[in-house]
Parts: sequence; C-alpha cells; structure tokens
Amino acid sequence: MGGSIGLALQQRKLARRVVGVGRRVASLRKARECGTVTETTTRLERGVAEADLIIVCTPVADIVDRVCEAARHCPPEALITDVGSTKSRIVRELERRLRSGPAFIGSHPMAGSEKTGPAHARADLLVERVTVVTPTPRTRDADVERIERFWAALGARVVRMTPLDHDQAVAMTSHATHLVAAALAAATPACALSLAASGWQDTTRIAAGDPQLWVQILLANRPEVLKSLGQFEKSLATFRAALARGDATRLLQLLDAGKQTRDSVGS
Amino acid sequence: MGGSIGLALQQRKLARRVVGVGRRVASLRKARECGTVTETTTRLERGVAEADLIIVCTPVADIVDRVCEAARHCPPEALITDVGSTKSRIVRELERRLRSGPAFIGSHPMAGSEKTGPAHARADLLVERVTVVTPTPRTRDADVERIERFWAALGARVVRMTPLDHDQAVAMTSHATHLVAAALAAATPACALSLAASGWQDTTRIAAGDPQLWVQILLANRPEVLKSLGQFEKSLATFRAALARGDATRLLQLLDAGKQTRDSVGS
Repeated sequence: MGGSIGLALQQRKLARRVVGVGRRVASLRKARECGTVTETTTRLERGVAEADLIIVCTPVADIVDRVCEAARHCPPEALITDVGSTKSRIVRELERRLRSGPAFIGSHPMAGSEKTGPAHARADLLVERVTVVTPTPRTRDADVERIERFWAALGARVVRMTPLDHDQAVAMTSHATHLVAAALAAATPACALSLAASGWQDTTRIAAGDPQLWVQILLANRPEVLKSLGQFEKSLATFRAALARGDATRLLQLLDAGKQTRDSVGS
Repeated sequence: MGGSIGLALQQRKLARRVVGVGRRVASLRKARECGTVTETTTRLERGVAEADLIIVCTPVADIVDRVCEAARHCPPEALITDVGSTKSRIVRELERRLRSGPAFIGSHPMAGSEKTGPAHARADLLVERVTVVTPTPRTRDADVERIERFWAALGARVVRMTPLDHDQAVAMTSHATHLVAAALAAATPACALSLAASGWQDTTRIAAGDPQLWVQILLANRPEVLKSLGQFEKSLATFRAALARGDATRLLQLLDAGKQTRDSVGS
C-alpha cells in the first residue's frame, strides 16, 4: 500500500519528496529501485522531521506505536493518518495517547491485493476505490477536509464514517469474507483441486493473503467479525435446509436474494 | 456455452456447419447475428439429421430428454455429448434408456461465466480450461478418444473421470462453493455494501449466476453437495473457534493451510 501511494503521489505530481521509512535496508533499497519513494531511511525520527503528511502503513498491531513515535518527531502542523483495516481500537487508543501536537485521523483505503511489496506497487491502486476516513467529534474540520482532499487527489472515492460504523461494515464485507474464503480453501480436498475452476478461484482468491497480517486484523475486530460470521452461518443454514429438503422454490428464492445483492454491487 | 463452442468450431475451422437448435426464434436469430452458428432450427429432428457430433447445452434437468430425442433422429454413427455440471444421474439414466443406436458420453467443460447468451460467447472460452469426460465401462474406447480429441481441439485440458468422482469433486469446487458465495452475498446488509471492495466482489462473484440453472444443478447433485457443505461448515467452525478464543497461533495455522491450498491452484 505504501508503495502504491508513493508511486501515485509522484505520478500525479502531488509531492516532491516521498520518504520511505522502514526497518529493513534491503526492502528500502528495493523501494527506491522501484521508484515508489524518492528517498528512504531506517530512522523514523529523521523520516518525519520535515513531513507535511505521514501515512503509517504497518500491520495493524503496530500502528498505534508508530503513530505516537511519528507524532513526537514531526512538525506540529503535520497530519498523521494510517491505512489500517480496522479503526475503532486504533482511533480510541490514539485519542487517549495523543493529547496535543500533530493531529491523527484514521483512514482505510479499500484496495490492495494478496500481492505485497514494492514490486507490486501500482500508481492506480486507489483510483475509483473507496477510502474510508474516520474522524471523531474531537477531529478538527480543517483536518478532515485536508485528509479527504488528499485521498481524493489520488483518485479515491472518499467515504466518511465513524470508526465503529466502519468496523461493523468491514467485519462482513472484508473480515468474515476472508474467513469464509480461507475456510473454503482449507476444506477443499487435494483430489478435487484439479476441478477447481474460475468459480472456486474467485471465491477463494483472498485466502492467498498474508496470514500474519490477517490474524492481526481479525483479532483487532474480533467481536464484530464474530457477529458477522454468525449472520453468514445463519444465512448458509437456510440455504442448506432448503437443499436438504429438496425445496426448489425456497432455494430459488434464496439464490435470487443472493444474486440481487451481488448484482447491486457490480464487478 | 453452446455459443462459445460454435464460435470456436468456426474460428478453428473444425466444422463447416454448426447448427443451433433452440425453441425461441428470437434467440436463434440472435445466435446467427452473433455468428455463433451457421444455421438454426427450432426442430431438433431436423437439426441433428446429418450431425457428426451433437452437444446438448440445455439446463441439466432437460439433458436426458434432449439426448434421447436427438438419438432417435441423428445418424447412427453420430456421437452425443452434453455440457452439464452434474454427471452421475444423467449418465446412469442415459445408459438405461439408450440401449442401441448413437453413443452418448458425458462431458463437463469447466468454464463459463455468470453472463449467458450468444452475445457473451467467446471463442477462447475453453482454452486452457479443464473439460471432464466421464465414460463408463460400457463406453467404447474409440468413442472416448473421439470426444477427447474434440474437446482438446477446442483448446481444453481434457480430464477423464468416472461420473461419481466428477460429481464428488465439483460438489466442493463448484456447487458448495456456489452456495457459500450466495449465502455470503445474501447475508451482507445493505448498509455495508458501500464498503464491499474487491475481496467481497471476488468471493461473491458467482452468486450472480442464474438461480434457475443453479437450483437444478444443486438438486441434481444433492447428496454430494450436502456432504461438501458439511466439510466446509466443519472447517469454518475451527476458524471461528480459534478467533473466539483469541488464539492467534491456531488462527495463523488455519489461515496458512487455506493459503497453501489456494496457492497450489494459482490464479
């Protein structure tokens, strides 16, 4: 994600300097080679010293600490955001810990793929995709507008929500969906895989995502994910019951409902 | 499917005449306009009268009757196949009903999409996709080889299986997968759909398929689909339990298993 944002910022001439901060020298060199950043450093305090905007793109479990660290070293007028897939816990924790100094507003660009690293960065990753911004009553209007303009400038469709509304929605559309895809892949016996055609491939595609990252995301949004999973299980049980009874009319009704919802979203 | 086969046959110069048989004059005219067939008729007995090969592309519930009807009117040396998504019931029934005359061998090209009709026909639909051929002990070797050469000539990767092995494999990779996708789409509340990004779109894509066709497929393979659904539910329950306990180690293990299976198939 960081790489794609860096590429887009340069391609759209929105930033002269894009500083990549990371721990591994090899990854930073790779990022420079791929042109996703204009310079790199392993020292966060140096990377953020002259920043206008800081985007924390670490796994969700590290976001709060990295934001706090950045806040200690960046100019007071800088704005800090993140790209984490969960928001409530992160935003709540940061409201508690960042009492003064630079402002933080949570963001979640709903894009990305199971392929990570600078080599897979794409300048158009966010174009036409939703990016959620999650201000709170304590966020200044000027800061909300500034972060919304930033994502919009990268081509994203910006949606403003509360952190909890965000977490409830993505619990179903992303997190429970991930579990379903992974559980389906895991349940498919090796002997059946030669008949795994495009339907199975689409339905399980996200199961290829990085398990380390997903464990963090799922645990960070656990109560909401369990609720969404319950809703899915209830839905599947009605399909199963209709099939078990051989009830063609009911099964048709259920498949129709699924199709209508799916059709409403588009490809 | 019929349209795509017709296009491919002409593009690859494998047939001079491709006769489209159907009930609705408007659909047949559309097929001629799209160039998927060279001629059309609403009368099956005329359409098959001089055929070398007959491919029944109706919904699964109609296949047995259409094959029997074709067998009564086609030359005795013609070969009949189908493209149905289930095989055991169809093959068993036809072995019983077709005691002499033209041979039938079941086929299942594992391709297609949620978009149907001649306007969506694609000459390369089968290229590099698996097509299953399901002979039985009563099928003559020469006929098996003939039908396998036919599908291979259209670019398909041909796999030979028993009808039951086929039905067991697709029960998981296609039929239970369809129910899971449809149940997930149906379970997603309207208010969450604005955050349905590419992950949800991929996972639920097949839920857009024609409910009428899917009811028939699911009912035709009901015992196997229910078994596969049970395996999926068991798999999902282990994921859920690990998440509910907050057991990061176990959750990682499970997600890893899903990823390994998914990675083994490719995109």
